[in-house]
Amino acid sequence: MVIGKNNLIVTLSCPNQPGIVHAITGALLEVNADISESQQFDSPNSGTFFMRVQFATDATVADTEAAIADVAKQYDMDAHVYDTAVKTRTLIMVSKDGRTMNELLFQQHAGTLPVEVPVIVSNHLDLQPMAYFYDVPFVHIPIIKHPDGTDNKAEAEARLMQILDQYDIELVVLARYMQILSDEMTRKLDKKAINIHHSFLPSFKGARPYHQAHDRGVKLIGATAHYVTADLDEGPIIEQRVQRVNHALTAQDFVQRGRAVEGATLAQAVQWHTEHRVLLDGDRTVIFE
Amino acid sequence: MVIGKNNLIVTLSCPNQPGIVHAITGALLEVNADISESQQFDSPNSGTFFMRVQFATDATVADTEAAIADVAKQYDMDAHVYDTAVKTRTLIMVSKDGRTMNELLFQQHAGTLPVEVPVIVSNHLDLQPMAYFYDVPFVHIPIIKHPDGTDNKAEAEARLMQILDQYDIELVVLARYMQILSDEMTRKLDKKAINIHHSFLPSFKGARPYHQAHDRGVKLIGATAHYVTADLDEGPIIEQRVQRVNHALTAQDFVQRGRAVEGATLAQAVQWHTEHRVLLDGDRTVIFE
Amino acid sequence: MVIGKNNLIVTLSCPNQPGIVHAITGALLEVNADISESQQFDSPNSGTFFMRVQFATDATVADTEAAIADVAKQYDMDAHVYDTAVKTRTLIMVSKDGRTMNELLFQQHAGTLPVEVPVIVSNHLDLQPMAYFYDVPFVHIPIIKHPDGTDNKAEAEARLMQILDQYDIELVVLARYMQILSDEMTRKLDKKAINIHHSFLPSFKGARPYHQAHDRGVKLIGATAHYVTADLDEGPIIEQRVQRVNHALTAQDFVQRGRAVEGATLAQAVQWHTEHRVLLDGDRTVIFE
Amino acid sequence: MVIGKNNLIVTLSCPNQPGIVHAITGALLEVNADISESQQFDSPNSGTFFMRVQFATDATVADTEAAIADVAKQYDMDAHVYDTAVKTRTLIMVSKDGRTMNELLFQQHAGTLPVEVPVIVSNHLDLQPMAYFYDVPFVHIPIIKHPDGTDNKAEAEARLMQILDQYDIELVVLARYMQILSDEMTRKLDKKAINIHHSFLPSFKGARPYHQAHDRGVKLIGATAHYVTADLDEGPIIEQRVQRVNHALTAQDFVQRGRAVEGATLAQAVQWHTEHRVLLDGDRTVIFE
Repeated sequence: MVIGKNNLIVTLSCPNQPGIVHAITGALLEVNADISESQQFDSPNSGTFFMRVQFATDATVADTEAAIADVAKQYDMDAHVYDTAVKTRTLIMVSKDGRTMNELLFQQHAGTLPVEVPVIVSNHLDLQPMAYFYDVPFVHIPIIKHPDGTDNKAEAEARLMQILDQYDIELVVLARYMQILSDEMTRKLDKKAINIHHSFLPSFKGARPYHQAHDRGVKLIGATAHYVTADLDEGPIIEQRVQRVNHALTAQDFVQRGRAVEGATLAQAVQWHTEHRVLLDGDRTVIFE
Repeated sequence: MVIGKNNLIVTLSCPNQPGIVHAITGALLEVNADISESQQFDSPNSGTFFMRVQFATDATVADTEAAIADVAKQYDMDAHVYDTAVKTRTLIMVSKDGRTMNELLFQQHAGTLPVEVPVIVSNHLDLQPMAYFYDVPFVHIPIIKHPDGTDNKAEAEARLMQILDQYDIELVVLARYMQILSDEMTRKLDKKAINIHHSFLPSFKGARPYHQAHDRGVKLIGATAHYVTADLDEGPIIEQRVQRVNHALTAQDFVQRGRAVEGATLAQAVQWHTEHRVLLDGDRTVIFE
Repeated sequence: MVIGKNNLIVTLSCPNQPGIVHAITGALLEVNADISESQQFDSPNSGTFFMRVQFATDATVADTEAAIADVAKQYDMDAHVYDTAVKTRTLIMVSKDGRTMNELLFQQHAGTLPVEVPVIVSNHLDLQPMAYFYDVPFVHIPIIKHPDGTDNKAEAEARLMQILDQYDIELVVLARYMQILSDEMTRKLDKKAINIHHSFLPSFKGARPYHQAHDRGVKLIGATAHYVTADLDEGPIIEQRVQRVNHALTAQDFVQRGRAVEGATLAQAVQWHTEHRVLLDGDRTVIFE
Repeated sequence: MVIGKNNLIVTLSCPNQPGIVHAITGALLEVNADISESQQFDSPNSGTFFMRVQFATDATVADTEAAIADVAKQYDMDAHVYDTAVKTRTLIMVSKDGRTMNELLFQQHAGTLPVEVPVIVSNHLDLQPMAYFYDVPFVHIPIIKHPDGTDNKAEAEARLMQILDQYDIELVVLARYMQILSDEMTRKLDKKAINIHHSFLPSFKGARPYHQAHDRGVKLIGATAHYVTADLDEGPIIEQRVQRVNHALTAQDFVQRGRAVEGATLAQAVQWHTEHRVLLDGDRTVIFE
């Protein structure tokens, strides 16, 4: 079997109607697409059709965009073409806890996660050595509270905006970045940033969730990876995982076990996002695993 | 090895202080207890010490109570002695959905759950045949709403109280009994009834939790088995389990998968309770698995 | 949206080549198929393409077979069309343990499993009452060992063959039927029967697997649901599940916990099979969940 | 409450007989032990009694050893006293894959794993930078095959023995060290080394287990952490975990997912071992979680 030199992905969503798959697979025949993976979903909630196709071809991204242009227009599709060889430019934001950043950088280095991390931003210096070990520039943007009650948040976010542009960032991963973002910032990052919530949403919103969980005597703790939206903790959920706990564990033990679940949950969400497996159906996600 | 003819369990809780285990194991030597299982927990939250000991002995429950009486008094213990041959007299309350009742009755019949179910109560007739198949009396207590806006809830609960006494009920299992109990009833059942909440508490309290979960696009659904207290849905949690879901499932699919988790969660909670493995530490449970 | 009156499923497999999806979706446009679910898989191991499409249509099964006939021939497809309203005629075979049979019959009754069970066969009488409770004929085919060393296995299997024909059986579920089938029988049942293996295959083949597992001190036990083939315990795996165990459990506890996993694993396999979600890729299964 | 300045652990095993707990808790009263955690297990298989007690005290390890000496002798105990402030001196052995080493070193650094890693040994140089990042000496012991068919294994193992002594190593973690150890070496490491087997033992022993698993079409893959014994892959199992897989994954995907499970499984086993929670009951382990 002759395999095309490029490995491309098409994702699309459009109002559902008969003939979509027939039309799009017809268009892909024009670029001799050898389909290796294809998934689709017809959302009964929104009446929207979703599809993801991965294929080998000699054609380029631009060739493929041209080949599907007519069909995309006819069916009013929101369609995107990606080259799997092009990794998602990802900014990691952290505070002091390096577990998740360590996981993401290790996997980037090992080649098991299709991200390119051109820069790391933190409000603390603790994780600078780890960033340097992986040869990633580390930008320290401290958050300073002045004696007169004012702070430098506005300047800090302006600096962050600058970095997003300068490094051409496509995805922001909030890997336990413990600062609340301004409304302007969350609007700019809308659906382009993934946050890990240290709880099994929608339980235990707010501060010290593991202590809340411990007070309540739960038997499972969990973590939720979700897109950032203006409404904090309410963005579309990408992944949730849980970990068993029991009466003999302290709230501090909950925190430690919780950290491990958070890291695994966030890494999974980043992997699906950067493999272009996550599509948005209103406030819900469609995950083409 | 000569094995005692009785298999007994002692559970106890008391303010923590040095010497408790030494004292209680000393007292148990008097009845020649051959200990097969022993667990203890010192709660840092409440300063309470908890212990469960299972052992073979020729002594009776009364002998053992006498043997530990002095120690129990000295250490201000809440202590209980059980004979594993005596099964917990359990009332199952249901409405129309028989999945969990089916599981409990099957396991009672198979001898894998130490319960004796002398009677089943329901506000509907649907599950009468299944009760009869397992040779269990079935009492139908319909809830009737009169045209004038009144109902028979008070009479229904009076009948239920009567049944609790008549059948000498030690445990009530609310196996998807879809009626809200009065404050008087929940006070009477306080810590003596186990409810299955069709959600992963404290998420999604209230009506149609699976639909709420579906609207929110969660990736895991779960169930919570807890003791009934006056504060609905806030009683001490005994067990929680989850089940993976995804975007392709409908809210109805969530309900069906949720039912399976509910049944397994409730059956586990009933098993631990009837094996005397659940002790109460304020609003939290200590589970000696 | 006008929904077709029939809910049909097409499954197909064929040598992989470009254009298959375009061709089959084109053919389905002829019957105005409104696709609700579609999955495909291109096996790199065997070069085979697999697809399952579920859709609403006013056309019948015969109409749809006619509509796809040319495409099926052109691409050398092994294609099948099913109506979801037609339930799979399923024979359950048991010995003395009724847990899995109880689960299957309960779900058939509740309408959550698309099976019709016209008859149950057992070599013991223990489960006759449960069969009758669910209004299913129960055929007792005892296996008798004669004093001269001969047995009635041949006659028993002849009777079983007769029942398969008489009741027009499409699927046989070996729900802990503890008899070894003859080569002739396994050939007849090849890929048409699902067995639950009381172990996490390929570990612990043979007798008393939980005792083997206990001797080895494993920390997880499991069950495997697989198609019956001539080579016992080696048929294509449909589902596997595990359950955590620990040192404090006896081999008998392993058995009891194992039974619960077995039942859940087999029920899942039967569900996928009867929803036509399982396709065969040589010795491996493709599961379109 | 006055808390003792030392946090000690006693582990013991001895032939089971009445009075052990009473005797040992009596002895511990002499050092004013304030017990925070205590577990025991009476193995019906071997007739052996196991116990682990953790407590605060002003007494030292030596004081405690003296306090329990008479009881230990009387009951023929194999008893050990540990100070939780003293971390287990652990040698990590690796080849090229750094995932598990990364996890262990990160956790050591974060203080969540009670190990001290004074040295890392590898037959390759790939992981030297990561070792240096964590300030751990890295000893490269290459395995060389000479053109005449001989190799330097004997010299390599002699060097390893030297390192075990030089660094006073208490535990060896084979974190994907891909060399087979000599019988002499495995005897020296007997029960003092933990290996991660890249399979769910006892399935798929031998080379390329994920490829074996893929060929067999399993639905779950797993990993097993076990003590090293002379009989390769047959040492006492400490922990096993699994990960769900499906038909769409390649053997290479199995490997990648398997690596993640291996890392988590080995890290858990090392944690339990270094917290002195693992006792040996013949070929089985008792884990006091």
